[in-house]
Amino acid sequence: MLDFVFHNKTEIYFGRNADERIGSLSQRLGKKVLLHYGGGSIKKTGFFHIIKEKLREAGVEFVELGGVKPNPRVSLVREGIELCRRENIEGILAVGGGSVIDSAKGISAGRFYEGDVWDLYEGKAQVGDLMPVGVILTIPAAGSESSLGSVLTNEDGWLKRDIGHPRIRPLFAIMNPERTFTLPPYQTACGATDIMAHVMERYFTKTRHVELTDRMSEGIMKTIIHNAPKALKNPYDYDIRAEIMWASTLAHNDLIGTGREQDWATHNIEHEISGIYDIAHGAGLSIVFPAWMKYVMEEDVARMAQFANRVFDIEINPYDFKETALEGITALEKFYQKIGMPIRLSDADIDDTRIEEMAKKATNDDSRTLGNFKELTSQDVAAIMRLAL
Amino acid sequence: MLDFVFHNKTEIYFGRNADERIGSLSQRLGKKVLLHYGGGSIKKTGFFHIIKEKLREAGVEFVELGGVKPNPRVSLVREGIELCRRENIEGILAVGGGSVIDSAKGISAGRFYEGDVWDLYEGKAQVGDLMPVGVILTIPAAGSESSLGSVLTNEDGWLKRDIGHPRIRPLFAIMNPERTFTLPPYQTACGATDIMAHVMERYFTKTRHVELTDRMSEGIMKTIIHNAPKALKNPYDYDIRAEIMWASTLAHNDLIGTGREQDWATHNIEHEISGIYDIAHGAGLSIVFPAWMKYVMEEDVARMAQFANRVFDIEINPYDFKETALEGITALEKFYQKIGMPIRLSDADIDDTRIEEMAKKATNDDSRTLGNFKELTSQDVAAIMRLAL
Repeated sequence: MLDFVFHNKTEIYFGRNADERIGSLSQRLGKKVLLHYGGGSIKKTGFFHIIKEKLREAGVEFVELGGVKPNPRVSLVREGIELCRRENIEGILAVGGGSVIDSAKGISAGRFYEGDVWDLYEGKAQVGDLMPVGVILTIPAAGSESSLGSVLTNEDGWLKRDIGHPRIRPLFAIMNPERTFTLPPYQTACGATDIMAHVMERYFTKTRHVELTDRMSEGIMKTIIHNAPKALKNPYDYDIRAEIMWASTLAHNDLIGTGREQDWATHNIEHEISGIYDIAHGAGLSIVFPAWMKYVMEEDVARMAQFANRVFDIEINPYDFKETALEGITALEKFYQKIGMPIRLSDADIDDTRIEEMAKKATNDDSRTLGNFKELTSQDVAAIMRLAL
Repeated sequence: MLDFVFHNKTEIYFGRNADERIGSLSQRLGKKVLLHYGGGSIKKTGFFHIIKEKLREAGVEFVELGGVKPNPRVSLVREGIELCRRENIEGILAVGGGSVIDSAKGISAGRFYEGDVWDLYEGKAQVGDLMPVGVILTIPAAGSESSLGSVLTNEDGWLKRDIGHPRIRPLFAIMNPERTFTLPPYQTACGATDIMAHVMERYFTKTRHVELTDRMSEGIMKTIIHNAPKALKNPYDYDIRAEIMWASTLAHNDLIGTGREQDWATHNIEHEISGIYDIAHGAGLSIVFPAWMKYVMEEDVARMAQFANRVFDIEINPYDFKETALEGITALEKFYQKIGMPIRLSDADIDDTRIEEMAKKATNDDSRTLGNFKELTSQDVAAIMRLAL
């Protein structure tokens, strides 16, 4: 086990009555907040109206900025930063899922930075002062409500880059599973895929003696595998939605990443695909992860067999770990298909024409490798993408 | 799943190099701190000397107060409060295990309270202002390093009572598994028993649909069952000690208690036994838990069978859950015996003479019931103790 620091300041208010805290918690963001959101779904359900009423009752002034898209754009973040400066806004209330929260984190980090916010995402400058961010979560997937990261897309070149810093964690997250009842099946499935991926990026490690975090990770994965198909059948079942929502947070608040080297190659590869083809992040992950696993399997086939055994209840063949490992990958693919996710690039109508370009971009033109379980060059990345065709 | 609020502010610094933070973290407690500890073991190992050097280097003044005993006494807490007032001490650095930390929390809570600190533990007054507490953990067991509780014993009547408040959580915890290498086998085993109990008090619930926290709980228990016997055989194995140490925190920081009704009858019953007979808390728990399980089993025999199956890998007999449940209890008893813990009152030389008295005390003379999985009267408590004879 490796040394680690674990500190997660985000306060979680979870459950049917969590919405009651919207007013009092928002007061802690400042006198005037940016109400940041995505498309029209929160308006259609009437929830947006409720939130605004609660802010007014609590005496919290607000300025609206909607229009956050999946794979959130740095252009809107720049707009938000200008708005916050012009209107003397003190904090941000993000209503939505990972895209809205990541966009809010970008605005928070860029607000007091003198240069262009993209510098922070390119690693040209460090995260300094921040605006406080609060979250009302409506899509359980990204775990951004208590994570230390933010991923943005720059339309200029369709680059996807991320920042990470402990102080970026939101101050609070209001999580009412009822708000996820109306989530469309595809978004529910994409969310489940993202949650699985956040666990697997940490699970596939070369760090030995990480039994406790392994077992907790397996618990989260089993919970998703068990509940995601149920949520598609019974979208209005509170308890099923609650299991998924709490799992989404615990998969990515770094608890299960403590004491271990993490991988994250799959996320980086996926970022190039969704950056260029604008497919859902979850769809990119369900395509890349099985291919990545097949490609890197030999690095630690025992761990792959353990995954198959403990997560998918596949008997370990002690004479042939590889057989067990492959059965585990097949089980993972079947799970993705069961919830309606693509498992090949062709399922998402993507062919091989831009594979080399994406592989180069993922490695910043061969100036970096990806991942730790196996360090991947652009050749490796291209090979993985071809395995996923 | 029930609604919940989860917020754990304690910063964890874990690993071989965690000690390097002692100076800088202690500065955050104030200019002058109370260095609170137990017996002589930290002096014998030389660790106490190291800590004092680091405080001096960091320019943190300190006043020593040692002598905390297992089942920590309110008399020493009163002494600590007086000392903090007299010396204008701003914060407390607790070095040790649960007893020292609980004692430090008592001093912290009593420092600014005008009446006697025991009022807080008897529920006659509410927790108000607190002194900051930092922890250097040397015994993994109680989980007090990031928990919201404190248990003290009042020698006047040998009453054991607790307080709980989110603000009581320590500011930071420095956790170096190497510091637990020299822990004697019996204390190692008592710690493992306490960790198991903290999980089981939450696991045995009547709240339905708590799959995620069930699975994470099972992960913690399996980790302890797997590693505690190994720690007795290889006390200097870093990774084994690290698994146990991190498990001790996660078992009791309330993560696995989210969304569910908890029980805690066993702890309350145990408090009466260790309050009167002054046996180790862990020893009391390994005696009471199997008896409690046998007594309350019928309340939800399916849950008991799930425990047997998922924690001890016992096949479920679908025609007879009770058989499976009983096999699980036997497996738990065997685990306790394997690590040298008592499983009957007679193993600790305790007979039935004071059972009625303890049962009355546990229920405050029949003015309260204990637990939630089954609400226990003093008659129930006495019956459980007799099952444990």
